[in-house]
Amino acid sequence: MSSHPKLAPEFVRNAAGRLVPSVVNGVPQVPFMGVGKYRPEGRKAAPPIRTALDYPANGDKRLPNIEAALRKCGLRDGMTISSHHHLRDGDHVALDVLQTVARMGVKNLRWFPSASFPSQAPVIELMKAGVVHHIEGSMNGPLGDYCTQGQMAGMGVLRSHGGRFQAIQDGEVHIDIAVIAAPSADMFGNADGSHGKSACGSLGFALADSMYADRVVVVTDDLVPFPCVPWQIQGNNVDYVVEVASIGDPAKIVSGTTQITRSPDRLRISELVAQFLKVSGILRDGFSFQAGAGGIALAFVQYLKPMMKEAGIAASFVRGGSTKVLVELLQEGLTKYILDGQTFDLDAVRSMAENPHHVATSPFTSYNYHGKGNFASMVDACILGATEVDVNFNANVVTHSDGRLLHGIGGWQNCLASRCTILALPAFRDRIPVVVDEVTTLTGPGELVDVIVTERAIAINPRRTDLLATVKGSKLPICDIRELKKEIEMICGGIPEKAKRSDRAAAVVKWVDGTVLDTVWAT
Amino acid sequence: MSSHPKLAPEFVRNAAGRLVPSVVNGVPQVPFMGVGKYRPEGRKAAPPIRTALDYPANGDKRLPNIEAALRKCGLRDGMTISSHHHLRDGDHVALDVLQTVARMGVKNLRWFPSASFPSQAPVIELMKAGVVHHIEGSMNGPLGDYCTQGQMAGMGVLRSHGGRFQAIQDGEVHIDIAVIAAPSADMFGNADGSHGKSACGSLGFALADSMYADRVVVVTDDLVPFPCVPWQIQGNNVDYVVEVASIGDPAKIVSGTTQITRSPDRLRISELVAQFLKVSGILRDGFSFQAGAGGIALAFVQYLKPMMKEAGIAASFVRGGSTKVLVELLQEGLTKYILDGQTFDLDAVRSMAENPHHVATSPFTSYNYHGKGNFASMVDACILGATEVDVNFNANVVTHSDGRLLHGIGGWQNCLASRCTILALPAFRDRIPVVVDEVTTLTGPGELVDVIVTERAIAINPRRTDLLATVKGSKLPICDIRELKKEIEMICGGIPEKAKRSDRAAAVVKWVDGTVLDTVWAT
Repeated sequence: MSSHPKLAPEFVRNAAGRLVPSVVNGVPQVPFMGVGKYRPEGRKAAPPIRTALDYPANGDKRLPNIEAALRKCGLRDGMTISSHHHLRDGDHVALDVLQTVARMGVKNLRWFPSASFPSQAPVIELMKAGVVHHIEGSMNGPLGDYCTQGQMAGMGVLRSHGGRFQAIQDGEVHIDIAVIAAPSADMFGNADGSHGKSACGSLGFALADSMYADRVVVVTDDLVPFPCVPWQIQGNNVDYVVEVASIGDPAKIVSGTTQITRSPDRLRISELVAQFLKVSGILRDGFSFQAGAGGIALAFVQYLKPMMKEAGIAASFVRGGSTKVLVELLQEGLTKYILDGQTFDLDAVRSMAENPHHVATSPFTSYNYHGKGNFASMVDACILGATEVDVNFNANVVTHSDGRLLHGIGGWQNCLASRCTILALPAFRDRIPVVVDEVTTLTGPGELVDVIVTERAIAINPRRTDLLATVKGSKLPICDIRELKKEIEMICGGIPEKAKRSDRAAAVVKWVDGTVLDTVWAT
Repeated sequence: MSSHPKLAPEFVRNAAGRLVPSVVNGVPQVPFMGVGKYRPEGRKAAPPIRTALDYPANGDKRLPNIEAALRKCGLRDGMTISSHHHLRDGDHVALDVLQTVARMGVKNLRWFPSASFPSQAPVIELMKAGVVHHIEGSMNGPLGDYCTQGQMAGMGVLRSHGGRFQAIQDGEVHIDIAVIAAPSADMFGNADGSHGKSACGSLGFALADSMYADRVVVVTDDLVPFPCVPWQIQGNNVDYVVEVASIGDPAKIVSGTTQITRSPDRLRISELVAQFLKVSGILRDGFSFQAGAGGIALAFVQYLKPMMKEAGIAASFVRGGSTKVLVELLQEGLTKYILDGQTFDLDAVRSMAENPHHVATSPFTSYNYHGKGNFASMVDACILGATEVDVNFNANVVTHSDGRLLHGIGGWQNCLASRCTILALPAFRDRIPVVVDEVTTLTGPGELVDVIVTERAIAINPRRTDLLATVKGSKLPICDIRELKKEIEMICGGIPEKAKRSDRAAAVVKWVDGTVLDTVWAT
């Protein structure tokens, strides 16, 4: 416990040694107890029983606009509204919904997005005006910055994709109204993301919301005749359908093409990751991997491909976020399946729409820690990024070294369950070392991070004696993480001064089991 | 209330005028209140929260045999075990499970099949031995007969497919252990019905069980490498996987070919149904229909087809039970989609596996009355059978005129929600009139039955003044149902004597909203 009088009654030190609030937004919390230590009790959330009596027999659930839908949903002060980031920075719906709420004079909402993006920065005005009380969900860019300024009326709560579903399913977060932006939908509410002018691929991040929210509104700019197939969201879980001119900006929903990094340093990292997989024996017929859509991850796949061809092997599955790069693997027979949570470019959207081996998944199948298992722990290797990693392999993915909250967790925490988690990152950014003594915000416990690959060297977690033994004697530039840290500090000219932070909690980072892993402190 | 002293405290007369027990197997019941009168309260069933901690990280949930799985599931006296009829009369798994329970010395189970078939008649021995206390679910043939003999230790409960999901979802029936026979599955429990040597098409009838049962066991004879795609059943809802040599007899799982009736009388009925759709204006571009896999229904489609081609129109969707006949409609562009609950022959199984416009549905999407609407009320015309229909258009589909329970409800009750429900049936069977004064067992309220088509005449429900007006002046042989009844009685030589029945309830028929519609009396 801290000796600071103001902190004493409200903060506890968790199993990771982090000071975390015991109550968040009025709800008592379980502090992180260690990986695999917390055991949930009780039963899942139980939504109200509905009756077909209250829904039109002809299936036509359309209402003229979002305001009408919110009104029918019984919108009132203090409710929780959820939205989803399938349309990424191109989304128009979530902001439109919140601005509609403002016009309706309703206040103090909890906004529960699966993630928020820079284009949603106007929500800051809605927070200042008291329309939005606080945000629970990933905050990328300006909204995160606003949060770390300590300006939100409530505390931010950051969850992984799996953690968000866990929280909904377990009843930690009750959603009053879920609004689902759908690139195609029918009047009954069946909705699909893989077709339509605003196609984004999967709508998997909205699945839990559609099942557990009291009221569900589908907003589409491509109303198709019944039935909308495939129905990634089932109309029998939907209350109202609203047709609008546009749900978003297609150019920002998916990038037309995916950019592989051209930076020589980052290409070097990508190549080292591929070589590590080969030398460590992870690269074998029927293996599986997950890599994101970042430049390093994409380049990694390009290095992996010739190795696979040369060895005459194919993956049993790769996990998306999918891009053209993964689609090509599928088309060339180098993987049997893409199990995809999110589609990042037009090639991937088309592939999901057309290829039955490109399968849309949801966080229930892939990530939810409170299910009967999930896919994440079955993946042979995950290649992830981070903003910082410390000498105990603890990693940060949400804040920068200056303490500012600028990124969401995404599926990152969930992916740490893979058989070999590799953080692939540059040794420094803007002359700030990425390997540090202690991460600013703990997002992933070090015991789950197996390998750090930078352009200068590869550091293997000492717990992974098996990996250390396998790569011994290879040409890989393996070194101790403390040595690596020292080398980086030499290049950068020492350790930068620690950023000052207040003792006020701006947000908390939840672990995949719903416990509180760390605090993001107001700057 | 009955004046019979023994009945007085236990039976009430419901809104349909039927005497029904107020308590069934110890559970208080709501008597049928009229169509659309009962309004459910409360919340859905809430299954226990699980944790990935308790499931193998490598995803391998296999156990060596069914007994090991039942043991791990904590099988004990008095539990409820569910199974499914996807493999129809060819299923080996459900009986194997119950016989395993017997060997394990466990007693007094409630067996909760989605339907039971003649090949499962050995369950009678298990009921005599006290292993199975009673059956809740459709009982086709010998098990139904046994039930009507009043020999089950508990009361049978008959539900429609939609009603079964409603009961599970609403917590009326708590399933301790669901056993799902799967034509293909992976070690994680992802399961699919459309592939494998025992392919049966959809596994939709097991979906609610997989979501709400405490424990879920997948039994397969085709273990495929992870991932089993499509995953009609999601592995994240599955506890254990058991591989067996055979889950069933392929010849009885699906018929190799579907038989269209050759009976001139039944062909006449089929033709009249098609003509009625044309004359009534229901047959128009973008219309929809559901017809079963019976001989009359199949022949009806064959009559409809040339009419559609001639008029240059296509259906927007047809609902399965699917057969070669519907698959041909899809292939010929005469319907855009088959929305399928059940696949009856090899052509249909293949079509579902290969054609993305042949879509597997579940009773959640199609039938559940306690959802936010369902597909059933959006269907323009449903062509159904019945064992009896009375002069008020009330229909019976479960018992014969001798009172014996020989058939399940299937989706029949749910289909009554369609815009035009047509019962297509022979005027008499074995010289017993099908049109009667009062049905033996009320399975469908007359206000939902719109048209009766027999080989002799068509009777339209007087409530449907719109239909009566439309067909007026046509060449269709329209007549009053009482006239039709009289005519049939003349042919059959009068009204057969009413079968005697006891005052003991052998089973109850639930309505789609969970209320008790009628009683099946022990003979």
